[in-house]
Amino acid sequence: MEGQKVVASIITIGDELLIGQTIDTNSAWMAQQLNAMGIWVHRRVAIGDVKEAIVKALDDESALSPIILITGGLGPTADDITKPTLAEYFGGTLVRDEATFKQVMEFFESRGLPPLQRNMDQALVPDVCTVLHNKRGTAPGMWFEKDGKVFVSMPGVPFEMKGLMEDHVLPRLKEHFQTPVVVHQTLIIAGMGESFVAERLVDFEAQLPANIKLAYLPSLGTIKLRLTAHGQDKLSTAASLSMQFHKLKDILADIVVADQDQPIAEVIGQLLLAKGKTVGTAESCTGGFIAHSMTLVPGSSAWYKGSVVSYANEIKTRMLGVKPETLAAHGAVSEAVVKEMVRGALGHLQTDYVIAVSGIMGPDGGTPEKPVGTVWVGVGNATETVAVKFQLRYDRYLNIQMTAAYAMNELRKII
Amino acid sequence: MEGQKVVASIITIGDELLIGQTIDTNSAWMAQQLNAMGIWVHRRVAIGDVKEAIVKALDDESALSPIILITGGLGPTADDITKPTLAEYFGGTLVRDEATFKQVMEFFESRGLPPLQRNMDQALVPDVCTVLHNKRGTAPGMWFEKDGKVFVSMPGVPFEMKGLMEDHVLPRLKEHFQTPVVVHQTLIIAGMGESFVAERLVDFEAQLPANIKLAYLPSLGTIKLRLTAHGQDKLSTAASLSMQFHKLKDILADIVVADQDQPIAEVIGQLLLAKGKTVGTAESCTGGFIAHSMTLVPGSSAWYKGSVVSYANEIKTRMLGVKPETLAAHGAVSEAVVKEMVRGALGHLQTDYVIAVSGIMGPDGGTPEKPVGTVWVGVGNATETVAVKFQLRYDRYLNIQMTAAYAMNELRKII
Repeated sequence: MEGQKVVASIITIGDELLIGQTIDTNSAWMAQQLNAMGIWVHRRVAIGDVKEAIVKALDDESALSPIILITGGLGPTADDITKPTLAEYFGGTLVRDEATFKQVMEFFESRGLPPLQRNMDQALVPDVCTVLHNKRGTAPGMWFEKDGKVFVSMPGVPFEMKGLMEDHVLPRLKEHFQTPVVVHQTLIIAGMGESFVAERLVDFEAQLPANIKLAYLPSLGTIKLRLTAHGQDKLSTAASLSMQFHKLKDILADIVVADQDQPIAEVIGQLLLAKGKTVGTAESCTGGFIAHSMTLVPGSSAWYKGSVVSYANEIKTRMLGVKPETLAAHGAVSEAVVKEMVRGALGHLQTDYVIAVSGIMGPDGGTPEKPVGTVWVGVGNATETVAVKFQLRYDRYLNIQMTAAYAMNELRKII
Repeated sequence: MEGQKVVASIITIGDELLIGQTIDTNSAWMAQQLNAMGIWVHRRVAIGDVKEAIVKALDDESALSPIILITGGLGPTADDITKPTLAEYFGGTLVRDEATFKQVMEFFESRGLPPLQRNMDQALVPDVCTVLHNKRGTAPGMWFEKDGKVFVSMPGVPFEMKGLMEDHVLPRLKEHFQTPVVVHQTLIIAGMGESFVAERLVDFEAQLPANIKLAYLPSLGTIKLRLTAHGQDKLSTAASLSMQFHKLKDILADIVVADQDQPIAEVIGQLLLAKGKTVGTAESCTGGFIAHSMTLVPGSSAWYKGSVVSYANEIKTRMLGVKPETLAAHGAVSEAVVKEMVRGALGHLQTDYVIAVSGIMGPDGGTPEKPVGTVWVGVGNATETVAVKFQLRYDRYLNIQMTAAYAMNELRKII
């Protein structure tokens, strides 16, 4: 970690994180945002709704970082520990913030519900902080400064925290701290294992200048390779990053999915849009997850028409035209059936392209010939039909996600 | 936290967690497992692949907890910092573990690929640890003991970590530590805001004995209420928990979804199975996410037949029989259209029940009359069709998930 980097700690408060009922998605998002502006999150600490634990974390982290971002412990059913602890820690008392109070009252009025005392108490804030207005909820953000360190407390609801970060915290941090120039470029690849990619990149990594780092970020069915450059000057840093990025892209040309950080469904959408084409899906084992992945992309209605989720064989027959004889002869998980699903879906959905999948996701349903994890993926258009077999080795949830990723990659190859 | 509780810290190692590219799902799962056996995770710390940071975290956490579970930093592309640091910290050197080496070689042989040096190096372990065999991957788990404290290092791949925990770590911790009896019961409710539920439960919470705690665990569209009892004797602890759980269930009878911790799709599956009925879905705005939620349940093929994801209006017309006149007169997001989608899907999918949804998920597509977040949900069977309107206020991703949860809850009410 270079001396010039500004570092930050994230403290998350809440028993719900420690008993494992909530997965902390906030920290990852916060780290991404901070990282993009040159602030390196070097520690994240999660603690419970316990006064002593909060004080200890504030002491420990402020000894290590000039920026301490705190989430959680502020909701209307929280145990009323975080706010009084912060007030005491920074030497203040709780007072009503009128702007927040007005917003709480309006929030409940608009829903025709009387606010409870605990809702109104959301407007109490330590008188030693700058209140950060939360327009998405009733718990405001709070910005404290002490001994040259910045502490920001935000609610744990991801939607509200993100709004506060974007509206207030990131711009204020940018004003407050001298951060180095940081530039990223991400390459997405698919179809090769991580260690083999690493082997192919040995020479590339060795020649990288000291201010450029390569990170491997495996995600389901794809790998993100992120190059990060640090520097003092935006133009020259971006130029040297760009040069390395092109080298990287050339070395991996045969397995590149996208040269920016985007989901594979979005890559497919852009390819289809550029050609004025549409796609539909015929899903058995993925049960709608491919359709979901595609329709998560904003604006997907311009290129995605729909899906037949044919979980039952009778639906494969009735709504996709798969022949009962083919099902009887080969079984639902077979090359012949996914090919008929492709042809049938092209006709029924009337799209230019189709993805079809049929497989055994587990935990049950496997046989010696077709064990759990056996998947046939079919993709096609008016002139061709391609079928590929995969053998997955994960649990049901991951098998579904991996099948979707592999299937979308097969489609991408033929567009 | 009571003195009798055994506490643990979780340390996660890896730059990928700090730059925000990986969401830490491991910690939540680990905490759940530990919690269920009476071990309270009181701190979680995430640090980068930096020797000094690792040593500091080991020092700090072992001063606070007798159990330190470490994940990450062990993969074939990891920066080779965690293992040597652990070896040095516990005063050992790296040696080859023959069982792991054999497994690495077999793993690559079965795939017809030559192992790389970095793959073979996965078999190196500090000679001062007990090796925990990882049958799902090539990085073994490592169990260290020092000054009466237990340290366990595991790979960060969730699938491998979970296997190691279940096969080795949890049983060994159970042997090693005297843990109190901990019993949980979870009630799932839907249809009422968290603060209003809290208000209804004020008296209930006040009368709870000191050894029983209530936790609110909002999840998408539902709230989990978890009662946890600590005690010395299993039978009496379970009995007193059960008494409180029944009180809780009575107070919230009108909004109970399930009296155990399970996804709403699983509740629907059980209700349908008990009646020998089936369900299908007709999804516009959720784009297959309801189908995905249902087919995530193992064995769902017994009660879930399939879906028409009718993202384009022409598919609503052609594959669900929605009348073009209805679409023209009311628009796709309307009571009339979801009702026709319900009737059409009952006929086309030939299921006993149907869920249909049509809405505007954002970020674009809203109008003054039908702003982003407007959703019509329809549910029905041979004799009835019910349509309900919701107004959501989240981003596209959450709007989709909330719509699915609300729609499944509407279906549950009529089964």
